[in-house]
Amino acid sequence: PRVLSDLTIGLSDGLTVPFALTAGLSAFNDTKVVLYGGIAELIAGSISMGLGGWLAGRGEAEFYENTLTATKTLISTHPASIPPLLHSIFSPYNLPPHSLSPIVQSLSKSPHLAAFIMQFHHKLPLSSDRTPLSSALTIAAGYFFGGFIPLLPYFFVSRNRVLLGLAWSVGVMAASLFAFGVGKTVLVGASSEEVEAQGEGGDREKRGWGKAVRGGVEMVVVGGVAAGAAMGIMQALG
Amino acid sequence: PRVLSDLTIGLSDGLTVPFALTAGLSAFNDTKVVLYGGIAELIAGSISMGLGGWLAGRGEAEFYENTLTATKTLISTHPASIPPLLHSIFSPYNLPPHSLSPIVQSLSKSPHLAAFIMQFHHKLPLSSDRTPLSSALTIAAGYFFGGFIPLLPYFFVSRNRVLLGLAWSVGVMAASLFAFGVGKTVLVGASSEEVEAQGEGGDREKRGWGKAVRGGVEMVVVGGVAAGAAMGIMQALG
Ligand SMILES: [Co+2]
Ligand SMILES: [Zn+2]
Ligand SMILES: [Zn+2]
Ligand SMILES: [Zn+2]
Ligand SMILES: [Zn+2]
Ligand SMILES: [Zn+2]
Ligand SMILES: [Zn+2]
Repeated sequence: PRVLSDLTIGLSDGLTVPFALTAGLSAFNDTKVVLYGGIAELIAGSISMGLGGWLAGRGEAEFYENTLTATKTLISTHPASIPPLLHSIFSPYNLPPHSLSPIVQSLSKSPHLAAFIMQFHHKLPLSSDRTPLSSALTIAAGYFFGGFIPLLPYFFVSRNRVLLGLAWSVGVMAASLFAFGVGKTVLVGASSEEVEAQGEGGDREKRGWGKAVRGGVEMVVVGGVAAGAAMGIMQALG
Repeated sequence: PRVLSDLTIGLSDGLTVPFALTAGLSAFNDTKVVLYGGIAELIAGSISMGLGGWLAGRGEAEFYENTLTATKTLISTHPASIPPLLHSIFSPYNLPPHSLSPIVQSLSKSPHLAAFIMQFHHKLPLSSDRTPLSSALTIAAGYFFGGFIPLLPYFFVSRNRVLLGLAWSVGVMAASLFAFGVGKTVLVGASSEEVEAQGEGGDREKRGWGKAVRGGVEMVVVGGVAAGAAMGIMQALG
């Protein structure tokens, strides 16, 4: 589901870049610097990530509009091209031709022909549940939330004990990476709604948790490597 | 198309955050600082943006696998639920029932039933042309490219003339935002392949360019505001 991808893009970026920045800023040995710099980057980053999501969503909406207009033009100016196009939709499924012709005939005359072609030929969902705005907000919120967590410890340690803050920040980030990994795996698993095999309910649960924990550990490793690389580069060049 | 959305997310983020950072670093009045800091952020940012794209792509691939397994389980354990499910696929198109039954019968027995349900009920394309890796590389490349352009001027101005570099950087960024906006609108427009209305070829071209220029101007305004906000926040808090 697209909302999960948007959230993943925001969160994983948020859990890496801001953390690397705050770690770099901790060299100034003053939590105020870390906090101000961190929050500044967080707001700026959320704006620009949200903007990216909005523009991408707008592009997809425009693509849908263009394709719909083109499809309607095709139907009105090239009616002869419709039956072959409808046949091509079903050809991968090797259905016997006699079962196809009645549906092609009724579709060719149906007022919903354009919608059908959009859905099954162009494979563009009719009302995409993802508006550009919701995509933008999801990514921005993911980024802000992801970047804010590693900042939290710096609010609590005293002003000159930056290294303590950094240590806590690393721990907090590892924990949130793990939670993010588990949550994502569970959400991805749960969203395949058709699993009604009651009988298998039992071991599916056990298998489910094993996979979720693996997803969590993997996220910690991957996120940790990325944050470490980001931090290393910032230190080396900064 | 997904590749365009990935590129948009990378490019627009790259054209905003690194620029804001370099503008902030120009306060040190030394192009070396701007260049090193800028390139460090650029590499760190591309890694973490690419990671986000990879994780999002993996999430979608896993979602596809789970749904496919669930669909196969449903077919084997609940054959009775298949005809109604197939009917539900076509119901939005108000097709006369008699034209539906032959296709429902042949589909129910077809070896491609699972593929059909994945495609038309779950609306998940069979082999998504977007692998997690290609998604990651597109976003990372977009970010790196977007962030590198505003850095270019700092290579050419002499070391202490940072403000000159900044001025050029603003100009270069505005130009690339415009080019990005035009390119996106043209690409989105061109990719609706079915437009064969030769007659309208002429004015569609004129309309096309007007829209593309508007897309470019809009991108400059939106990107400029975001970069300005990012820069303002960095300065205010930094
Ligand atoms: Co980013
Ligand atoms: Zn076959
Ligand atoms: Zn036919
Ligand atoms: Zn269903
Ligand atoms: Zn109707
Ligand atoms: Zn039936
Ligand atoms: Zn086509």
